[in-house]
Amino acid sequence: MGSEEVKLLSFWVSPFGKRIEWALKLKGVEYEYIEEDIFNKSSLLLELNPVHKKVPVLVHAEKSIIAESFIILEYIDEKWKQYSLLPHHPYQRALARFWAATAEEMFRKVVWIALRSPTSGDEREKALKESREVMERIEEEIRGKKYFGGDNIGYLDIALGWISYWLPVLEEVGSMQIIDPLKFPATTAWMTNFLSNPVIKDNLPPRDKMLVYLKDLRSKYIVL
Amino acid sequence: MGSEEVKLLSFWVSPFGKRIEWALKLKGVEYEYIEEDIFNKSSLLLELNPVHKKVPVLVHAEKSIIAESFIILEYIDEKWKQYSLLPHHPYQRALARFWAATAEEMFRKVVWIALRSPTSGDEREKALKESREVMERIEEEIRGKKYFGGDNIGYLDIALGWISYWLPVLEEVGSMQIIDPLKFPATTAWMTNFLSNPVIKDNLPPRDKMLVYLKDLRSKYIVL
Repeated sequence: MGSEEVKLLSFWVSPFGKRIEWALKLKGVEYEYIEEDIFNKSSLLLELNPVHKKVPVLVHAEKSIIAESFIILEYIDEKWKQYSLLPHHPYQRALARFWAATAEEMFRKVVWIALRSPTSGDEREKALKESREVMERIEEEIRGKKYFGGDNIGYLDIALGWISYWLPVLEEVGSMQIIDPLKFPATTAWMTNFLSNPVIKDNLPPRDKMLVYLKDLRSKYIVL
Repeated sequence: MGSEEVKLLSFWVSPFGKRIEWALKLKGVEYEYIEEDIFNKSSLLLELNPVHKKVPVLVHAEKSIIAESFIILEYIDEKWKQYSLLPHHPYQRALARFWAATAEEMFRKVVWIALRSPTSGDEREKALKESREVMERIEEEIRGKKYFGGDNIGYLDIALGWISYWLPVLEEVGSMQIIDPLKFPATTAWMTNFLSNPVIKDNLPPRDKMLVYLKDLRSKYIVL
């Protein structure tokens, strides 16, 4: 088994890194977790991901080194066939990839609002409006289903997982509201389902620690 | 055949749209091309891609509607199995996706420099430096191979195709140099191979028209 070893370089609060942990756990693939200090990057990280210098990085059997969370998820789904993450049909696969990529753009905007922008302003309002528009589309996608993947957590659930746990914290840090249970009841119900799944529930960063960390990060960025 | 019809909404100069045309032609899939005026978007485009409102959009058998060029490429490769675009092995697939995504970030920077930035400045120099760094990595990837896909054009060739044809025009428009045949001999040789492939050669926008169009676009952005 030594040569088939799976290692994951990640950072405790990274939603991108958590995606990979959830996927490996859903598939029952054992891995060694290596915590990376992203403010003082290790020579190992710089060597494994010289282009982006970011976590997560997956190392499989010593020679397969993969960066970028969505690309790692595809690799995991292709390499370990048990418990499919992506749907079977090409069009359903395309839709899962499309919503994952679209919500990722929204994520970037939300993080920017939460950590960098002042509490008012045109740019902030525009980003909030666009995020709510994406949420409206997501609401349509999840309506009538337990998970985006159907009865089980799939690729899109993993990709959107941050909405259920990181987004409420980002809302608090950035003094904003995107999730509205009255406007997005199906998404809110999905959030509850997702977070109560044992694989997810037991693999989340501590909320309090995350809040302190993100508030601290915001105070640093705002000063800069 | 009517119900299996393939339609492509694109814009003549779009490198993203050309990717889809190349893929369909390599696979021998017939399609109807629908030219879109991206400055006066049709109600059809807005209906088919309400989130991003961008070309390309692929419509297959009337009901499968897919946006975003890389997601369309994956769909095409999964739906029509003849002539594989992505490599067979999961790790090779991951690498192809990684370099495609990485060069796409570079593309955004290059377009920004070419169309929007003044001819000097720190931000411009930073973007040029980062672009050249990506080119150095690409040079390592292609060394010793005819195509990124090996003996035949594959997913990564299609994804990087813009470097061979659009990038030199963008360099001219933006008064900059990224491609250097002395620094990137293997990439330069690949560009020649790629452009001389019949499927590519016969499916490129006219260079002169493209140059006029991009110069005009730059003058508008610079004024704004």
